[in-house]
Amino acid sequence: MQPIRAVQWSAAGDAVRIIDQRRLPSEVVERDLRTVDDVCDAIRTLAVRGAPAIGIAGAMGLVAAVAPYAGEPEGATPGRGAFDAIVAQAASRIAGARPTAVNLAWAVNRVVRAARAASGSPRAALEAMRREATAILDEDRAMCDAIGRHALAFVADGATVLTHCNAGALATAGIGTALAPVYAAHAAGRRVRVVADETRPLLQGSRLTAWELQRAGIPVEVIADAAAAALMARRRVDVVLVGADRIAANGDVANKVGTYGLAIAAASHGVPFVVCAPSSTIDPLAPSGDAIAIEERDPAELLAVGGVPTAPDGAAAWNPAFDVTPGRLVTAIVTDTGVCRAPYNFRA
Amino acid sequence: MQPIRAVQWSAAGDAVRIIDQRRLPSEVVERDLRTVDDVCDAIRTLAVRGAPAIGIAGAMGLVAAVAPYAGEPEGATPGRGAFDAIVAQAASRIAGARPTAVNLAWAVNRVVRAARAASGSPRAALEAMRREATAILDEDRAMCDAIGRHALAFVADGATVLTHCNAGALATAGIGTALAPVYAAHAAGRRVRVVADETRPLLQGSRLTAWELQRAGIPVEVIADAAAAALMARRRVDVVLVGADRIAANGDVANKVGTYGLAIAAASHGVPFVVCAPSSTIDPLAPSGDAIAIEERDPAELLAVGGVPTAPDGAAAWNPAFDVTPGRLVTAIVTDTGVCRAPYNFRA
Repeated sequence: MQPIRAVQWSAAGDAVRIIDQRRLPSEVVERDLRTVDDVCDAIRTLAVRGAPAIGIAGAMGLVAAVAPYAGEPEGATPGRGAFDAIVAQAASRIAGARPTAVNLAWAVNRVVRAARAASGSPRAALEAMRREATAILDEDRAMCDAIGRHALAFVADGATVLTHCNAGALATAGIGTALAPVYAAHAAGRRVRVVADETRPLLQGSRLTAWELQRAGIPVEVIADAAAAALMARRRVDVVLVGADRIAANGDVANKVGTYGLAIAAASHGVPFVVCAPSSTIDPLAPSGDAIAIEERDPAELLAVGGVPTAPDGAAAWNPAFDVTPGRLVTAIVTDTGVCRAPYNFRA
Repeated sequence: MQPIRAVQWSAAGDAVRIIDQRRLPSEVVERDLRTVDDVCDAIRTLAVRGAPAIGIAGAMGLVAAVAPYAGEPEGATPGRGAFDAIVAQAASRIAGARPTAVNLAWAVNRVVRAARAASGSPRAALEAMRREATAILDEDRAMCDAIGRHALAFVADGATVLTHCNAGALATAGIGTALAPVYAAHAAGRRVRVVADETRPLLQGSRLTAWELQRAGIPVEVIADAAAAALMARRRVDVVLVGADRIAANGDVANKVGTYGLAIAAASHGVPFVVCAPSSTIDPLAPSGDAIAIEERDPAELLAVGGVPTAPDGAAAWNPAFDVTPGRLVTAIVTDTGVCRAPYNFRA
């Protein structure tokens, strides 16, 4: 079976091709993003989601969106200043599509810097941008593999892994972050089973994590988010593996809402709580979680499921997308560069 | 506005009238239960739910179900032995409809004992049963009021209360258990607002708690279950109020799955965690939570919402209805008889 390609170049190379994650698990639909609006809309509506995948889609989407303004190879060449202004404006809009993940701004800025570093025509700048975006894509796949290797020690033969949201292949260009050691253990012939929090309100656990693990032949069981503590009390959980959207210098981790409660419960049961994320997720400029902006999403996401209302008309809701887990509750932070343990002190 | 009557006698007195809670919040539908099958089905499918309401519906339902076998007032009198056997068999089936709540068996047994204590004809036994079931109904309303009085001190003017599932008017014949002090505070002119965990998989928080509080004019906001710890970290929560389905002698509390994780998070934030339940919920014969049977429900409840699948075909799920919160995490247990604080040591 083909590996999942959550983000890739379209066949013609003029667009970013994503799996539309709003349609899973009922349908596997690929969409091509060509404009700044396409890219921002896909990111905001979670058609593409997961911090690494958002970064890659943003970087590649920036290239696709500005390409029409670089002129034809044989045609009239627009001014470089005008092109750079278009790039800057598109980059600013894309980088602002979601506020919490640091990867988005990081990846978009890499592409902008590549353009700035390239002298010559807009066409030359565009090609430098395309190479940089492709490098980010390739590095992401390698990053996932490296996380899988470094975190493999947390997934022994016979292990039961509890995870939250989706930090798998669908969240990256490769084999995922939190699920990378699961795929690596499976590939190494270790028996591993995963319990997936369903992850309300958008059900990334039951819709996406269960789908991609089932597709890979790895046993997976869905639970209500609220059943996680009972699971630790009544059944065996060997490790909690989660991803991250941003990690502060002191090891505070912003991740899908629910991660924090899971970390408190894991600490209370002596279950190792391991965060797996690309090193680009670390934001040394944020001294602690207090410096991380937490996106609050539309309450409507919580008040209906698949168009079916789940609360009375006019009900109010609070719908933060993320929470912050203090570094002291995090057993280890595994990145592509290795394993860090508390106390954390990341520097720029 | 009329108070909610979750369980009452039908107008003709020959059936138990319930609000079908599967239909809320979209529709308010009342149903009359007349047979053992009606009663068991309503309890198993959560048309009537909440430990006190289940007990009352079971007790009253037993009366309604055996009434046709007691003979007409002026007609031929069936043998008392045959009637008692019918009562015993019906009671056994109803008491077994759900395993975790102790109130169901307790209430049904009260009615059976009333029959046994009544000498004379089946008709006389039936009338004694009807009086006992009505007494349980009336006592439940008084019990709710008493819990409201005893727990009022936990709900100061301006308080924000976090609750899980529905332990309100819909779970009792009166003003609820966990919500009783909220209604009492509101009636006393205190400003109080409630944050309701939506309570997956069956959404009793968003469907029922939000509905009944909105109906009563009490501000309520719905959150994802997984957002509770973030709420405690980022906003003010003055007290967590929850109900109970069974309380062991050492204060371990079986309640809707998710209660335990909430208690761990509350302890971690220094937020008082208060259990409100009728004294009939206490089971001194269960030394600890280990002795409490935890019902595991159909995984299908977790894998679709309103008929819309939320996980891939063939996905596995673990769906425990309840969890056990250790007594050491419970700040106070408030019953109709007063306020108990840890360490708990309930005796028969």
